[in-house]
Amino acid sequence: MTTVGIISAGDMGSAIGKRLIDSGFDVYTTFEGRSERTISQAQKAGLKDAGSFESLINQTNTLLSIIPPGHAGSVAIKIAAAAEKMNPNLNFIECNAISPRTMNEISSLFKENSTAVIDVGIIGGPPTPNSSPRIYCSGPNLNSLSVLSNAGLDVRVLSHKIGDASALKMLYAASTKGTTALWTQFLVAAKKLNLDEQLLLEFQGSRLEVSESLIKEIPRMPRRAKRWIGEMNEIAQTFADLGMTPDLMTGAAEIFKFVTETSLSEQTSDEENPSLDFALKTLVENLHKKHN
Amino acid sequence: MTTVGIISAGDMGSAIGKRLIDSGFDVYTTFEGRSERTISQAQKAGLKDAGSFESLINQTNTLLSIIPPGHAGSVAIKIAAAAEKMNPNLNFIECNAISPRTMNEISSLFKENSTAVIDVGIIGGPPTPNSSPRIYCSGPNLNSLSVLSNAGLDVRVLSHKIGDASALKMLYAASTKGTTALWTQFLVAAKKLNLDEQLLLEFQGSRLEVSESLIKEIPRMPRRAKRWIGEMNEIAQTFADLGMTPDLMTGAAEIFKFVTETSLSEQTSDEENPSLDFALKTLVENLHKKHN
Repeated sequence: MTTVGIISAGDMGSAIGKRLIDSGFDVYTTFEGRSERTISQAQKAGLKDAGSFESLINQTNTLLSIIPPGHAGSVAIKIAAAAEKMNPNLNFIECNAISPRTMNEISSLFKENSTAVIDVGIIGGPPTPNSSPRIYCSGPNLNSLSVLSNAGLDVRVLSHKIGDASALKMLYAASTKGTTALWTQFLVAAKKLNLDEQLLLEFQGSRLEVSESLIKEIPRMPRRAKRWIGEMNEIAQTFADLGMTPDLMTGAAEIFKFVTETSLSEQTSDEENPSLDFALKTLVENLHKKHN
Repeated sequence: MTTVGIISAGDMGSAIGKRLIDSGFDVYTTFEGRSERTISQAQKAGLKDAGSFESLINQTNTLLSIIPPGHAGSVAIKIAAAAEKMNPNLNFIECNAISPRTMNEISSLFKENSTAVIDVGIIGGPPTPNSSPRIYCSGPNLNSLSVLSNAGLDVRVLSHKIGDASALKMLYAASTKGTTALWTQFLVAAKKLNLDEQLLLEFQGSRLEVSESLIKEIPRMPRRAKRWIGEMNEIAQTFADLGMTPDLMTGAAEIFKFVTETSLSEQTSDEENPSLDFALKTLVENLHKKHN
Protein backbone atom coordinates (compact mmCIF):
# COMPACT_ATOMS: atom_id res chain seq x y z
CA MET A 1 0.00 0.00 0.00
CA THR A 2 1.22 3.50 -0.88
CA THR A 3 1.89 5.71 2.10
CA VAL A 4 2.18 9.41 1.48
CA GLY A 5 4.16 11.81 3.63
CA ILE A 6 3.46 15.51 3.85
CA ILE A 7 5.89 18.14 5.10
CA SER A 8 4.25 20.11 6.54
CA ALA A 9 0.67 19.94 7.71
CA GLY A 10 -0.29 23.63 7.37
CA ASP A 11 -3.55 24.82 5.81
CA MET A 12 -2.64 23.53 2.32
CA GLY A 13 -0.79 20.40 3.50
CA SER A 14 -3.61 19.25 5.77
CA ALA A 15 -6.30 19.88 3.15
CA ILE A 16 -4.42 17.95 0.45
CA GLY A 17 -3.73 15.23 3.04
CA LYS A 18 -7.44 14.94 3.77
CA ARG A 19 -8.23 14.44 0.08
CA LEU A 20 -5.61 11.68 -0.13
CA ILE A 21 -6.97 9.99 3.00
CA ASP A 22 -10.51 10.17 1.61
CA SER A 23 -9.33 8.37 -1.50
CA GLY A 24 -7.75 5.59 0.56
CA PHE A 25 -4.13 6.51 1.19
CA ASP A 26 -2.34 6.40 4.50
CA VAL A 27 -1.01 9.90 5.08
CA TYR A 28 1.73 10.74 7.55
CA THR A 29 3.36 13.91 8.73
CA THR A 30 5.46 14.87 11.73
CA PHE A 31 4.15 17.01 14.54
CA GLU A 32 7.67 17.78 15.77
CA GLY A 33 7.90 21.49 16.53
CA ARG A 34 4.41 22.34 15.27
CA SER A 35 1.90 24.54 17.12
CA GLU A 36 -1.09 23.08 18.95
CA ARG A 37 -3.39 24.68 16.42
CA THR A 38 -1.57 23.07 13.48
CA ILE A 39 -1.47 19.66 15.16
CA SER A 40 -5.18 19.80 15.94
CA GLN A 41 -5.98 20.84 12.35
CA ALA A 42 -3.87 17.98 10.95
CA GLN A 43 -5.40 15.44 13.32
CA LYS A 44 -8.87 16.58 12.36
CA ALA A 45 -7.93 15.99 8.72
CA GLY A 46 -6.84 12.47 9.64
CA LEU A 47 -3.08 12.79 9.20
CA LYS A 48 -0.99 10.44 11.34
CA ASP A 49 2.12 11.39 13.25
CA ALA A 50 5.19 9.53 11.99
CA GLY A 51 7.13 10.73 15.02
CA SER A 52 10.46 12.07 13.87
CA PHE A 53 11.42 13.61 10.53
CA GLU A 54 13.64 10.59 9.77
CA SER A 55 10.89 8.12 10.54
CA LEU A 56 8.57 10.05 8.20
CA ILE A 57 11.04 9.79 5.31
CA ASN A 58 11.66 6.14 6.12
CA GLN A 59 8.05 4.92 5.91
CA THR A 60 6.92 7.05 2.95
CA ASN A 61 6.62 6.02 -0.71
CA THR A 62 5.75 9.47 -1.92
CA LEU A 63 6.65 12.67 -0.09
CA LEU A 64 5.10 16.08 -0.66
CA SER A 65 6.93 19.21 0.47
CA ILE A 66 4.49 22.07 1.09
CA ILE A 67 6.22 24.69 3.22
CA PRO A 68 7.05 28.41 3.25
CA PRO A 69 9.32 29.06 0.25
CA GLY A 70 12.12 30.46 2.38
CA HIS A 71 12.62 27.00 3.95
CA ALA A 72 12.25 24.87 0.82
CA GLY A 73 15.97 24.59 0.14
CA SER A 74 17.15 23.69 3.64
CA VAL A 75 14.34 21.17 4.17
CA ALA A 76 15.10 19.55 0.79
CA ILE A 77 18.72 19.07 1.87
CA LYS A 78 17.52 17.20 4.98
CA ILE A 79 15.08 15.12 2.92
CA ALA A 80 17.77 14.21 0.36
CA ALA A 81 20.21 13.15 3.08
CA ALA A 82 17.59 11.00 4.84
CA ALA A 83 16.35 9.50 1.56
CA GLU A 84 19.85 8.55 0.48
CA LYS A 85 20.40 6.74 3.79
CA MET A 86 17.04 5.09 4.30
CA ASN A 87 14.73 5.33 1.31
CA PRO A 88 16.50 5.86 -2.05
CA ASN A 89 13.36 4.94 -4.05
CA LEU A 90 11.35 7.76 -2.52
CA ASN A 91 9.16 9.77 -4.86
CA PHE A 92 9.61 13.42 -4.04
CA ILE A 93 6.97 15.96 -5.07
CA GLU A 94 8.31 19.48 -4.48
CA CYS A 95 5.23 21.75 -4.27
CA ASN A 96 6.74 25.02 -3.07
CA ALA A 97 6.62 28.54 -4.48
CA ILE A 98 10.27 28.68 -5.53
CA SER A 99 12.22 29.93 -8.52
CA PRO A 100 13.12 27.54 -11.36
CA ARG A 101 16.74 27.92 -10.25
CA THR A 102 15.98 26.86 -6.65
CA MET A 103 13.86 23.99 -8.02
CA ASN A 104 16.75 22.79 -10.19
CA GLU A 105 19.15 23.03 -7.26
CA ILE A 106 16.77 20.94 -5.15
CA SER A 107 16.31 18.40 -7.94
CA SER A 108 20.08 17.97 -8.28
CA LEU A 109 20.31 17.02 -4.58
CA PHE A 110 18.65 13.73 -5.48
CA LYS A 111 20.82 12.88 -8.48
CA GLU A 112 22.93 10.33 -6.57
CA ASN A 113 20.00 8.04 -5.73
CA SER A 114 16.95 6.84 -7.66
CA THR A 115 14.50 9.33 -6.20
CA ALA A 116 12.07 10.64 -8.82
CA VAL A 117 11.59 14.38 -8.35
CA ILE A 118 8.51 16.18 -9.62
CA ASP A 119 8.24 19.94 -9.84
CA VAL A 120 4.81 21.14 -8.72
CA GLY A 121 3.31 24.63 -8.51
CA ILE A 122 -0.01 24.92 -6.70
CA ILE A 123 -2.27 27.76 -7.82
CA GLY A 124 -5.39 28.47 -5.79
CA GLY A 125 -6.44 27.84 -2.19
CA PRO A 126 -6.48 24.53 -0.27
CA PRO A 127 -8.80 21.86 -1.72
CA THR A 128 -12.24 21.25 -0.20
CA PRO A 129 -14.43 18.20 -0.78
CA ASN A 130 -15.84 19.98 -3.86
CA SER A 131 -12.91 22.02 -5.17
CA SER A 132 -9.26 21.69 -6.03
CA PRO A 133 -6.48 24.16 -6.68
CA ARG A 134 -4.70 23.74 -10.02
CA ILE A 135 -1.70 21.49 -9.42
CA TYR A 136 0.76 22.24 -12.26
CA CYS A 137 3.48 19.63 -12.72
CA SER A 138 6.65 19.11 -14.70
CA GLY A 139 9.51 16.63 -14.64
CA PRO A 140 11.06 13.71 -16.52
CA ASN A 141 9.22 11.02 -14.51
CA LEU A 142 5.68 11.91 -13.54
CA ASN A 143 4.46 8.47 -12.38
CA SER A 144 3.91 9.32 -8.75
CA LEU A 145 1.43 12.03 -9.71
CA SER A 146 -1.18 9.25 -9.74
CA VAL A 147 -1.37 9.73 -5.96
CA LEU A 148 -2.78 13.21 -6.57
CA SER A 149 -4.92 12.52 -9.62
CA ASN A 150 -6.48 9.41 -8.03
CA ALA A 151 -7.63 11.67 -5.22
CA GLY A 152 -9.52 13.77 -7.76
CA LEU A 153 -7.18 16.73 -7.47
CA ASP A 154 -6.82 18.99 -10.54
CA VAL A 155 -3.43 17.81 -11.83
CA ARG A 156 -2.13 19.62 -14.95
CA VAL A 157 1.03 18.41 -16.63
CA LEU A 158 3.06 21.20 -18.26
CA SER A 159 6.19 19.50 -19.60
CA HIS A 160 9.00 17.10 -18.78
CA LYS A 161 11.28 19.91 -17.68
CA ILE A 162 12.06 20.55 -14.02
CA GLY A 163 11.51 24.27 -13.47
CA ASP A 164 8.47 24.84 -15.68
CA ALA A 165 5.87 24.25 -12.95
CA SER A 166 7.81 26.44 -10.54
CA ALA A 167 8.12 29.18 -13.17
CA LEU A 168 4.38 29.20 -13.87
CA LYS A 169 3.70 29.48 -10.14
CA MET A 170 6.21 32.37 -9.85
CA LEU A 171 4.63 34.30 -12.71
CA TYR A 172 1.12 33.78 -11.41
CA ALA A 173 2.18 34.84 -7.90
CA ALA A 174 3.76 37.98 -9.39
CA SER A 175 0.35 38.79 -10.84
CA THR A 176 -1.55 38.27 -7.58
CA LYS A 177 0.77 38.96 -4.65
CA GLY A 178 2.99 41.42 -6.54
CA THR A 179 -0.07 43.44 -7.51
CA THR A 180 -1.36 43.30 -3.92
CA ALA A 181 1.97 44.64 -2.64
CA LEU A 182 1.85 47.57 -5.06
CA TRP A 183 -1.77 48.40 -4.27
CA THR A 184 -1.07 48.15 -0.54
CA GLN A 185 1.80 50.57 -0.86
CA PHE A 186 -0.02 53.39 -2.62
CA LEU A 187 -3.14 53.00 -0.46
CA VAL A 188 -0.99 53.27 2.68
CA ALA A 189 0.58 56.40 1.17
CA ALA A 190 -2.89 57.77 0.35
CA LYS A 191 -4.07 57.13 3.91
CA LYS A 192 -0.96 58.80 5.31
CA LEU A 193 -1.52 61.88 3.09
CA ASN A 194 -5.28 62.01 3.84
CA LEU A 195 -6.03 61.39 0.18
CA ASP A 196 -7.47 57.89 0.50
CA GLU A 197 -11.11 58.96 0.14
CA GLN A 198 -10.35 61.03 -2.95
CA LEU A 199 -8.34 58.21 -4.49
CA LEU A 200 -11.06 55.63 -3.86
CA LEU A 201 -13.61 58.06 -5.31
CA GLU A 202 -11.48 58.47 -8.44
CA PHE A 203 -11.27 54.68 -8.74
CA GLN A 204 -15.06 54.46 -8.49
CA GLY A 205 -15.33 56.79 -11.44
CA SER A 206 -12.59 55.49 -13.69
CA ARG A 207 -11.79 51.87 -12.84
CA LEU A 208 -14.44 50.47 -10.56
CA GLU A 209 -14.28 46.72 -11.19
CA VAL A 210 -10.51 46.34 -11.36
CA SER A 211 -9.86 48.46 -8.31
CA GLU A 212 -12.55 46.78 -6.19
CA SER A 213 -11.23 43.38 -7.10
CA LEU A 214 -7.59 44.25 -6.38
CA ILE A 215 -8.31 46.23 -3.20
CA LYS A 216 -10.34 43.46 -1.61
CA GLU A 217 -7.17 41.33 -1.56
CA ILE A 218 -5.45 43.75 0.83
CA PRO A 219 -7.28 42.85 4.08
CA ARG A 220 -6.82 39.14 3.27
CA MET A 221 -3.05 39.50 2.96
CA PRO A 222 -1.54 40.40 6.37
CA ARG A 223 -1.60 36.97 8.00
CA ARG A 224 -0.02 35.50 4.88
CA ALA A 225 2.52 38.29 4.44
CA LYS A 226 5.37 36.61 6.32
CA ARG A 227 5.33 33.57 4.04
CA TRP A 228 5.15 35.82 1.00
CA ILE A 229 8.43 37.62 1.72
CA GLY A 230 10.41 34.55 0.68
CA GLU A 231 8.09 34.00 -2.28
CA MET A 232 8.70 37.52 -3.59
CA ASN A 233 12.46 36.96 -3.27
CA GLU A 234 12.14 33.75 -5.30
CA ILE A 235 10.27 35.66 -8.02
CA ALA A 236 12.96 38.37 -7.90
CA GLN A 237 15.53 35.65 -8.61
CA THR A 238 13.38 34.25 -11.43
CA PHE A 239 13.36 37.65 -13.15
CA ALA A 240 17.06 38.31 -12.49
CA ASP A 241 17.97 34.93 -14.00
CA LEU A 242 16.14 36.03 -17.18
CA GLY A 243 18.15 39.27 -17.29
CA MET A 244 15.33 41.45 -15.95
CA THR A 245 15.22 43.81 -12.99
CA PRO A 246 14.43 42.16 -9.63
CA ASP A 247 13.38 45.52 -8.12
CA LEU A 248 9.60 45.19 -8.46
CA MET A 249 9.78 41.96 -6.50
CA THR A 250 12.33 42.99 -3.88
CA GLY A 251 10.06 46.01 -3.40
CA ALA A 252 7.06 43.69 -2.93
CA ALA A 253 9.09 41.69 -0.38
CA GLU A 254 9.80 44.95 1.49
CA ILE A 255 6.09 45.77 1.60
CA PHE A 256 5.22 42.35 3.04
CA LYS A 257 8.06 42.71 5.58
CA PHE A 258 6.60 46.08 6.56
CA VAL A 259 3.18 44.45 7.05
CA THR A 260 4.59 41.67 9.25
CA GLU A 261 5.95 44.32 11.61
CA THR A 262 2.36 45.14 12.64
CA SER A 263 -0.23 43.34 14.75
CA LEU A 264 -2.20 42.64 11.55
CA SER A 265 0.08 39.72 10.78
CA GLU A 266 -0.78 37.99 14.06
CA GLN A 267 -4.31 37.14 12.96
CA THR A 268 -5.09 33.47 12.39
CA SER A 269 -7.20 32.07 9.58
CA ASP A 270 -10.07 31.51 12.07
CA GLU A 271 -10.40 35.25 12.66
CA GLU A 272 -12.26 37.65 10.41
CA ASN A 273 -10.20 39.81 8.07
CA PRO A 274 -9.75 43.43 9.17
CA SER A 275 -11.53 46.18 7.24
CA LEU A 276 -9.49 47.98 4.58
CA ASP A 277 -9.63 51.16 6.63
CA PHE A 278 -8.42 49.46 9.81
CA ALA A 279 -5.62 47.72 7.91
CA LEU A 280 -4.45 50.97 6.32
CA LYS A 281 -4.61 52.86 9.64
CA THR A 282 -2.54 50.18 11.34
CA LEU A 283 0.05 50.28 8.55
CA VAL A 284 0.24 54.10 8.69
CA GLU A 285 0.92 53.83 12.44
CA ASN A 286 3.86 51.56 11.67
CA LEU A 287 5.13 54.18 9.21
CA HIS A 288 5.12 56.70 12.07
CA LYS A 289 6.87 54.31 14.43
CA LYS A 290 9.65 53.72 11.94
CA HIS A 291 10.08 57.43 11.34
CA ASN A 292 10.22 58.44 15.01
CA MET B 1 -8.41 89.81 -22.22
CA THR B 2 -6.83 86.77 -20.60
CA THR B 3 -4.18 85.10 -22.70
CA VAL B 4 -3.17 81.60 -21.75
CA GLY B 5 0.23 80.07 -22.46
CA ILE B 6 0.82 76.35 -22.72
CA ILE B 7 4.19 74.65 -22.42
CA SER B 8 4.15 72.42 -24.31
CA ALA B 9 1.71 71.62 -27.08
CA GLY B 10 1.84 67.82 -26.99
CA ASP B 11 -1.25 65.58 -27.13
CA MET B 12 -2.58 66.80 -23.77
CA GLY B 13 -1.41 70.42 -24.12
CA SER B 14 -2.96 70.89 -27.55
CA ALA B 15 -6.25 69.29 -26.54
CA ILE B 16 -6.59 71.46 -23.43
CA GLY B 17 -5.57 74.46 -25.54
CA LYS B 18 -8.35 73.71 -28.00
CA ARG B 19 -10.94 73.65 -25.22
CA LEU B 20 -9.70 77.03 -23.96
CA ILE B 21 -9.78 78.50 -27.48
CA ASP B 22 -13.31 77.18 -27.99
CA SER B 23 -14.39 79.01 -24.83
CA GLY B 24 -12.91 82.28 -26.07
CA PHE B 25 -9.35 82.50 -24.78
CA ASP B 26 -6.29 83.41 -26.81
CA VAL B 27 -3.88 80.50 -26.38
CA TYR B 28 -0.19 80.70 -27.15
CA THR B 29 2.66 78.25 -27.13
CA THR B 30 6.13 78.18 -28.63
CA PHE B 31 7.04 75.98 -31.57
CA GLU B 32 10.76 76.35 -30.84
CA GLY B 33 12.42 72.96 -31.12
CA ARG B 34 9.18 71.02 -31.65
CA SER B 35 8.66 68.36 -34.33
CA GLU B 36 6.67 69.03 -37.48
CA ARG B 37 4.01 66.62 -36.29
CA THR B 38 3.59 68.44 -32.97
CA ILE B 39 3.51 71.86 -34.65
CA SER B 40 0.87 70.71 -37.13
CA GLN B 41 -1.24 69.20 -34.31
CA ALA B 42 -1.02 72.44 -32.29
CA GLN B 43 -1.88 74.60 -35.29
CA LYS B 44 -4.88 72.43 -36.06
CA ALA B 45 -6.04 72.96 -32.47
CA GLY B 46 -5.72 76.72 -33.00
CA LEU B 47 -2.74 77.46 -30.77
CA LYS B 48 -0.67 80.48 -31.79
CA ASP B 49 3.10 80.65 -31.86
CA ALA B 50 4.46 83.22 -29.42
CA GLY B 51 7.89 82.88 -31.01
CA SER B 52 10.47 82.48 -28.27
CA PHE B 53 10.07 81.05 -24.78
CA GLU B 54 10.65 84.53 -23.25
CA SER B 55 8.03 86.11 -25.48
CA LEU B 56 5.56 83.41 -24.41
CA ILE B 57 6.11 84.16 -20.72
CA ASN B 58 5.94 87.91 -21.40
CA GLN B 59 2.52 87.98 -23.06
CA THR B 60 0.78 85.38 -20.89
CA ASN B 61 -1.57 85.98 -17.94
CA THR B 62 -1.87 82.32 -17.04
CA LEU B 63 0.70 79.69 -17.95
CA LEU B 64 0.15 75.92 -17.95
CA SER B 65 3.12 73.57 -17.81
CA ILE B 66 2.25 70.18 -19.32
CA ILE B 67 5.49 68.36 -20.11
CA PRO B 68 7.26 65.06 -19.46
CA PRO B 69 7.85 64.85 -15.69
CA GLY B 70 11.61 64.51 -16.07
CA HIS B 71 11.78 68.07 -17.46
CA ALA B 72 9.32 69.75 -15.08
CA GLY B 73 11.97 71.06 -12.69
CA SER B 74 14.38 72.53 -15.23
CA VAL B 75 11.59 74.17 -17.26
CA ALA B 76 10.10 75.66 -14.07
CA ILE B 77 13.47 77.26 -13.27
CA LYS B 78 13.44 78.93 -16.70
CA ILE B 79 9.83 80.04 -16.25
CA ALA B 80 10.52 81.49 -12.79
CA ALA B 81 13.55 83.45 -14.05
CA ALA B 82 11.63 84.88 -17.01
CA ALA B 83 8.56 85.69 -14.89
CA GLU B 84 10.65 87.53 -12.31
CA LYS B 85 12.19 89.68 -15.05
CA MET B 86 9.18 90.33 -17.27
CA ASN B 87 5.90 89.16 -15.76
CA PRO B 88 5.86 88.91 -11.95
CA ASN B 89 2.04 88.70 -11.81
CA LEU B 90 1.97 85.54 -13.91
CA ASN B 91 -0.41 82.79 -12.79
CA PHE B 92 1.43 79.51 -13.01
CA ILE B 93 -0.49 76.22 -13.20
CA GLU B 94 1.91 73.30 -12.80
CA CYS B 95 0.16 70.26 -14.31
CA ASN B 96 2.93 67.68 -14.37
CA ALA B 97 3.19 64.18 -12.94
CA ILE B 98 5.71 65.04 -10.23
CA SER B 99 6.22 64.17 -6.58
CA PRO B 100 4.87 66.49 -3.85
CA ARG B 101 8.51 67.27 -3.04
CA THR B 102 9.34 68.34 -6.61
CA MET B 103 6.09 70.35 -6.67
CA ASN B 104 7.05 72.17 -3.47
CA GLU B 105 10.54 72.88 -4.82
CA ILE B 106 8.98 74.34 -7.98
CA SER B 107 6.52 76.42 -5.96
CA SER B 108 9.32 77.88 -3.86
CA LEU B 109 11.04 79.17 -7.05
CA PHE B 110 8.27 81.74 -7.32
CA LYS B 111 8.37 82.96 -3.71
CA GLU B 112 10.27 86.15 -4.54
CA ASN B 113 7.58 87.55 -6.87
CA SER B 114 3.79 87.65 -6.77
CA THR B 115 3.21 84.67 -9.04
CA ALA B 116 0.32 82.49 -7.86
CA VAL B 117 1.25 78.84 -8.21
CA ILE B 118 -1.39 76.10 -8.48
CA ASP B 119 -0.61 72.40 -8.14
CA VAL B 120 -2.53 70.37 -10.71
CA GLY B 121 -2.64 66.63 -11.33
CA ILE B 122 -4.40 65.51 -14.51
CA ILE B 123 -5.99 62.06 -14.43
CA GLY B 124 -7.37 60.65 -17.67
CA GLY B 125 -6.67 61.22 -21.36
CA PRO B 126 -6.72 64.51 -23.32
CA PRO B 127 -10.11 66.27 -23.39
CA THR B 128 -12.38 65.96 -26.42
CA PRO B 129 -15.38 68.20 -27.22
CA ASN B 130 -17.50 65.85 -25.08
CA SER B 131 -15.14 64.66 -22.36
CA SER B 132 -12.64 65.96 -19.86
CA PRO B 133 -9.95 64.35 -17.74
CA ARG B 134 -10.23 65.01 -14.02
CA ILE B 135 -8.13 68.08 -13.23
CA TYR B 136 -7.27 67.83 -9.51
CA CYS B 137 -6.02 71.10 -7.99
CA SER B 138 -4.53 72.36 -4.75
CA GLY B 139 -2.88 75.57 -3.59
CA PRO B 140 -3.38 78.66 -1.43
CA ASN B 141 -4.70 80.85 -4.27
CA LEU B 142 -6.88 79.05 -6.77
CA ASN B 143 -8.34 82.05 -8.63
CA SER B 144 -6.75 81.38 -12.00
CA LEU B 145 -8.47 77.98 -12.17
CA SER B 146 -11.44 79.88 -13.63
CA VAL B 147 -9.62 79.66 -16.97
CA LEU B 148 -10.05 75.89 -16.87
CA SER B 149 -13.51 75.69 -15.30
CA ASN B 150 -14.93 78.31 -17.69
CA ALA B 151 -13.84 76.05 -20.53
CA GLY B 152 -16.00 73.28 -19.07
CA LEU B 153 -13.08 71.18 -17.96
CA ASP B 154 -13.62 68.88 -14.96
CA VAL B 155 -11.80 70.89 -12.26
CA ARG B 156 -11.73 69.28 -8.79
CA VAL B 157 -10.31 71.23 -5.85
CA LEU B 158 -8.61 69.03 -3.25
CA SER B 159 -7.20 71.46 -0.68
CA HIS B 160 -5.20 74.64 -0.20
CA LYS B 161 -1.95 72.70 0.16
CA ILE B 162 0.67 72.62 -2.60
CA GLY B 163 1.59 68.95 -3.07
CA ASP B 164 -1.84 67.35 -2.58
CA ALA B 165 -2.81 67.36 -6.26
CA SER B 166 0.60 66.04 -7.25
CA ALA B 167 0.37 63.32 -4.60
CA LEU B 168 -3.04 62.15 -5.82
CA LYS B 169 -1.70 61.98 -9.37
CA MET B 170 1.34 59.98 -8.18
CA LEU B 171 -0.78 57.45 -6.30
CA TYR B 172 -3.19 57.01 -9.19
CA ALA B 173 -0.30 56.60 -11.64
CA ALA B 174 1.20 53.96 -9.34
CA SER B 175 -2.09 52.07 -9.68
CA THR B 176 -2.21 52.27 -13.48
CA LYS B 177 1.33 52.51 -14.84
CA GLY B 178 2.95 50.68 -11.92
CA THR B 179 0.56 47.78 -12.41
CA THR B 180 1.20 47.82 -16.18
CA ALA B 181 4.97 47.60 -15.56
CA LEU B 182 4.52 44.59 -13.28
CA TRP B 183 2.18 42.81 -15.68
CA THR B 184 4.50 43.54 -18.60
CA GLN B 185 7.41 42.04 -16.73
CA PHE B 186 5.88 38.68 -15.87
CA LEU B 187 4.25 38.31 -19.29
CA VAL B 188 7.63 38.91 -20.96
CA ALA B 189 9.10 36.29 -18.62
CA ALA B 190 6.24 33.90 -19.49
CA LYS B 191 6.83 34.44 -23.22
CA LYS B 192 10.55 33.86 -22.79
CA LEU B 193 9.90 30.59 -20.89
CA ASN B 194 7.21 29.43 -23.35
CA LEU B 195 4.64 29.52 -20.59
CA ASP B 196 2.58 32.47 -21.85
CA GLU B 197 -0.27 30.35 -23.23
CA GLN B 198 -0.55 28.36 -20.00
CA LEU B 199 -0.47 31.52 -17.90
CA LEU B 200 -3.15 33.23 -19.99
CA LEU B 201 -5.25 30.06 -19.78
CA GLU B 202 -4.90 30.04 -16.00
CA PHE B 203 -6.00 33.70 -15.94
CA GLN B 204 -9.05 32.82 -18.02
CA GLY B 205 -10.03 30.28 -15.40
CA SER B 206 -9.25 32.14 -12.20
CA ARG B 207 -9.22 35.90 -12.84
CA LEU B 208 -10.70 36.64 -16.22
CA GLU B 209 -11.98 40.23 -15.89
CA VAL B 210 -9.07 41.66 -13.93
CA SER B 211 -6.43 40.07 -16.11
CA GLU B 212 -8.10 41.06 -19.39
CA SER B 213 -8.46 44.62 -18.24
CA LEU B 214 -4.85 44.90 -17.02
CA ILE B 215 -3.32 43.04 -19.97
CA LYS B 216 -5.02 45.23 -22.56
CA GLU B 217 -3.00 48.19 -21.22
CA ILE B 218 0.28 46.57 -22.27
CA PRO B 219 0.11 47.14 -26.06
CA ARG B 220 -0.99 50.74 -25.44
CA MET B 221 2.05 51.49 -23.29
CA PRO B 222 5.24 51.32 -25.44
CA ARG B 223 4.98 54.72 -27.14
CA ARG B 224 4.32 56.34 -23.78
CA ALA B 225 7.01 54.38 -21.94
CA LYS B 226 9.78 56.97 -22.33
CA ARG B 227 7.75 59.67 -20.59
CA TRP B 228 6.76 57.24 -17.86
CA ILE B 229 10.35 56.53 -16.75
CA GLY B 230 10.56 59.95 -15.11
CA GLU B 231 7.06 59.58 -13.71
CA MET B 232 7.96 56.29 -12.01
CA ASN B 233 11.04 57.94 -10.50
CA GLU B 234 8.85 60.76 -9.14
CA ILE B 235 6.54 58.17 -7.53
CA ALA B 236 9.61 56.39 -6.11
CA GLN B 237 10.58 59.68 -4.45
CA THR B 238 7.03 60.15 -3.16
CA PHE B 239 7.16 56.77 -1.41
CA ALA B 240 10.72 57.27 -0.13
CA ASP B 241 9.74 60.64 1.37
CA LEU B 242 7.02 58.82 3.33
CA GLY B 243 9.54 56.30 4.66
CA MET B 244 8.53 53.50 2.30
CA THR B 245 10.56 51.44 -0.16
CA PRO B 246 11.07 53.06 -3.60
CA ASP B 247 11.93 49.67 -5.16
CA LEU B 248 8.57 48.86 -6.74
CA MET B 249 8.71 52.15 -8.61
CA THR B 250 12.39 52.11 -9.56
CA GLY B 251 11.64 48.61 -10.84
CA ALA B 252 8.73 49.98 -12.90
CA ALA B 253 11.06 52.67 -14.28
CA GLU B 254 13.50 49.92 -15.31
CA ILE B 255 10.75 48.07 -17.15
CA PHE B 256 9.74 51.18 -19.10
CA LYS B 257 13.41 51.87 -19.89
CA PHE B 258 13.68 48.30 -21.19
CA VAL B 259 10.62 48.90 -23.42
CA THR B 260 12.04 52.14 -24.86
CA GLU B 261 15.10 50.20 -26.04
CA THR B 262 12.88 48.44 -28.62
CA SER B 263 11.27 49.56 -31.85
CA LEU B 264 7.87 49.40 -30.10
CA SER B 265 8.52 52.79 -28.54
CA GLU B 266 8.91 54.46 -31.94
CA GLN B 267 5.21 54.16 -32.78
CA THR B 268 3.23 57.38 -32.93
CA SER B 269 -0.30 57.89 -31.64
CA ASP B 270 -1.60 57.76 -35.25
CA GLU B 271 -0.48 54.14 -35.63
CA GLU B 272 -2.41 51.14 -34.39
CA ASN B 273 -1.23 49.49 -31.20
CA PRO B 274 0.72 46.24 -31.66
CA SER B 275 -0.88 42.96 -30.62
CA LEU B 276 0.02 41.64 -27.18
CA ASP B 277 1.82 38.72 -28.78
CA PHE B 278 3.89 40.95 -31.08
CA ALA B 279 4.76 43.28 -28.20
CA LEU B 280 5.89 40.39 -25.99
CA LYS B 281 7.92 38.80 -28.80
CA THR B 282 9.70 42.09 -29.47
CA LEU B 283 10.48 42.53 -25.78
CA VAL B 284 11.82 38.97 -25.51
CA GLU B 285 14.13 39.71 -28.46
CA ASN B 286 15.51 42.67 -26.55
CA LEU B 287 16.11 40.35 -23.58
CA HIS B 288 18.23 38.15 -25.86
CA LYS B 289 20.13 41.14 -27.25
CA LYS B 290 21.02 42.32 -23.78
CA HIS B 291 22.17 38.87 -22.75
CA ASN B 292 24.39 38.23 -25.79
